[in-house]
Amino acid sequence: MTTSPKAAPEVMEKLVSLCKRRGFIFQSSEIYGGAGSVWDYGPLGVELKRNIKELWWNAMVRARDDIEGLDAAILMHPRVWEASGHVAGFVDPLVDCKNCKKRFRADDPRIKGTPGAPDGQCPACGMKGTLSEPRQFNLMFKTFMGPVEDSASVAYLRPETAQGIYVNFLNVQQSTRQKVPFGIAQIGKAFRNEITPGNFIFRTREFEQMEMQFFVEPDDAPKWFDYWKAERMSWHRSLGIDQARLSYHEHSGAELAHYAKAAFDIQFDFGGTLGSQEIEGIHNRGDFDLTQHQAFSGKKLEYFDQPNNKRFLPWVIETSVGADRTTLAVLTNAYREESVAGEDEGRTVLALSPLIAPIKAGVFPLVKKDGMPEMAQKLSAELRAAFPVFYDDSGAIGRRYRRQDEVGTPFCVTVDGESLAEGTVTIRDRDTLQQIRLPAEQVRAHISERIAR
Amino acid sequence: MTTSPKAAPEVMEKLVSLCKRRGFIFQSSEIYGGAGSVWDYGPLGVELKRNIKELWWNAMVRARDDIEGLDAAILMHPRVWEASGHVAGFVDPLVDCKNCKKRFRADDPRIKGTPGAPDGQCPACGMKGTLSEPRQFNLMFKTFMGPVEDSASVAYLRPETAQGIYVNFLNVQQSTRQKVPFGIAQIGKAFRNEITPGNFIFRTREFEQMEMQFFVEPDDAPKWFDYWKAERMSWHRSLGIDQARLSYHEHSGAELAHYAKAAFDIQFDFGGTLGSQEIEGIHNRGDFDLTQHQAFSGKKLEYFDQPNNKRFLPWVIETSVGADRTTLAVLTNAYREESVAGEDEGRTVLALSPLIAPIKAGVFPLVKKDGMPEMAQKLSAELRAAFPVFYDDSGAIGRRYRRQDEVGTPFCVTVDGESLAEGTVTIRDRDTLQQIRLPAEQVRAHISERIAR
Repeated sequence: MTTSPKAAPEVMEKLVSLCKRRGFIFQSSEIYGGAGSVWDYGPLGVELKRNIKELWWNAMVRARDDIEGLDAAILMHPRVWEASGHVAGFVDPLVDCKNCKKRFRADDPRIKGTPGAPDGQCPACGMKGTLSEPRQFNLMFKTFMGPVEDSASVAYLRPETAQGIYVNFLNVQQSTRQKVPFGIAQIGKAFRNEITPGNFIFRTREFEQMEMQFFVEPDDAPKWFDYWKAERMSWHRSLGIDQARLSYHEHSGAELAHYAKAAFDIQFDFGGTLGSQEIEGIHNRGDFDLTQHQAFSGKKLEYFDQPNNKRFLPWVIETSVGADRTTLAVLTNAYREESVAGEDEGRTVLALSPLIAPIKAGVFPLVKKDGMPEMAQKLSAELRAAFPVFYDDSGAIGRRYRRQDEVGTPFCVTVDGESLAEGTVTIRDRDTLQQIRLPAEQVRAHISERIAR
Repeated sequence: MTTSPKAAPEVMEKLVSLCKRRGFIFQSSEIYGGAGSVWDYGPLGVELKRNIKELWWNAMVRARDDIEGLDAAILMHPRVWEASGHVAGFVDPLVDCKNCKKRFRADDPRIKGTPGAPDGQCPACGMKGTLSEPRQFNLMFKTFMGPVEDSASVAYLRPETAQGIYVNFLNVQQSTRQKVPFGIAQIGKAFRNEITPGNFIFRTREFEQMEMQFFVEPDDAPKWFDYWKAERMSWHRSLGIDQARLSYHEHSGAELAHYAKAAFDIQFDFGGTLGSQEIEGIHNRGDFDLTQHQAFSGKKLEYFDQPNNKRFLPWVIETSVGADRTTLAVLTNAYREESVAGEDEGRTVLALSPLIAPIKAGVFPLVKKDGMPEMAQKLSAELRAAFPVFYDDSGAIGRRYRRQDEVGTPFCVTVDGESLAEGTVTIRDRDTLQQIRLPAEQVRAHISERIAR
């Protein structure tokens, strides 16, 4: 078995097609021509993404006694976004064409000349001098709460989950009696009205974040920043992502956000034209956020350090990872086209870690007779109590193996003639193609152990 | 130990207070005075709700081979809501006061006289003849996708998750090769711009649904309707809700929605002024939804029944349950105030099923010396690998027990003098107050077994 060199520019296209065909990811409202850069997770995609989110929650909340979970709502008081800086600063400059009424990002490379001047040329209608000067366009989705659409009832769909953590900082600290240093973590949807979304689920208008804010003594911030930088990189590796495709990117100078003292991205190399891109950010935010919310709300948000009898605003180390981007990274990382020794047809494989694979085992009767389907169905039901399985009795056995390879199922269990006589079945490994034979009653424990390994 | 008669009208008030104090549920954006009827789940609430959602997902998706999972986006193509009937029909009649500019539901009991007529009196400013005739107000939250706010870019926050399932019906069926009868299930946020939200997390503007649409042959619809009616009732009982507080309510005549052939609610008796209220609906929707989407999208949505070589639109049996309402039901069901024999002070207990309790065990050293804290911390770390635990060494042991009772922790493990000598610990049962003594190394298996029971 040899792995062909990856034709990187094509992988994304092939993934989009595989994801639709096999039920990982569909375009939202596809029968209506699609909703702008919004995607739905199908039966396999929802399990894959759930597994990734569950691993994050376990690593960040359940396995630790110094991080608390939270699930803050998407709708918040509009003053939150004034305090956070999003109302004033979360903007893209846009230009309008006075002739064709189309809008473009001011930095759109198709624009020729200078917007607002006679030589500015519209990329859509081609007219000159019709482009307005750049104007600021806020990226938050705006809506109205309550029956009256006026400025008093404006609400925004949150563009990040982090602010729900800051405004609840004292509620969480006091109800749990946590002491600094400690963190608050949450998983949830966020929305950004991107002008140029794209690259499948890489940049979308609706997306899911997994964010953790770690509250520390100001002097300890650099130490915790380094800790989380390392910790988060090792989490991505635990998903089975190749180390060689992961890297750090340090923000410096103009790249550094106004709230950040220091920032590193964790990047994944998607290959092709997309290349290495951020999938997670680790930020030392200082006391910017708590200071702002204290000022805008008029409520003290200081932490009381009882042993030392002092009050202070903790600094925040943030880890912020996109659930959709991570899903795209593990899919891209796992995609392989391989030729198989002795066979004409190659195979497409998603070499997903068994930990996150949506289906853990395929269960097949070798042929659809002689009691094999009955035995395979019985085994399938037994295994389903422990992990997701797929029973398949249709088509040639080789075809059924390929179907499971393509969706990343790590193990295929086959009931054959010997099974009926001896009570044993074969287990085929997706990656090595090796088969072993085991008593049927040992299959559940064997696969459970290999998933957890 | 005796359970006092529940002071039903006060239970909700007490729950709201307990939920804030102990970190189950906070008012959203509380430091800014709150966001209108939106709530955040704190550290204990997020675990409780996660456990409920996980039990639903396991029962509805993972344990079955005839239901597929889905996670459709909140933002959809606006035509979806024309097809579903929400643009035209999801409305409340409102009246405006021309004098004070306030708005009211047309059926607001404070309105005197007839809106639109000289005797119609404004409940806010008291003027007569200033109330407009009732006008329809749509309950969907409206926003704009893309940079231009015009009718072409209108988008709505979905008011229910079900439509994401209908528009993906063929995508899911074809990618999974499921055959009718089969279902599609999803958990997700939905939004309704309610004019009169209230009763804590019972009716909120942002909420989470757990919906399943089961696609059947038209003739089989009544049979499957009965099946799901029974199945869903038994699920609520599996959460530990008292059977006596659960009931069915049949919709008939005017109550029946335009799309429904038959509908039953599962109600929970919240007590007090709220009384018995819907927590889940089971609906026979016929082929209304697929017919509408077929007509509005121009895409055939028929299922092809290969063995019988016929095409048809399946009928839909829907089960739709509110995750927040179910959370409120289990909290209300679990709340008890008890006097304890031989003690002056009573106790407040959340008698939550160990399956859904956010913390499974409290771990305490009897006193903060003689090596007890070290042994308790070691045990706590061991147990945390298996389930959520809370280590507590502050205050009198009786006080620590009470703190865990109040948040529903089913077991408390105490390390005492005998523990150091003999390696045994006590395990106290929240409900019976009985204590048993076990070797420390058996605690994890013992509690795991009792949680799963």
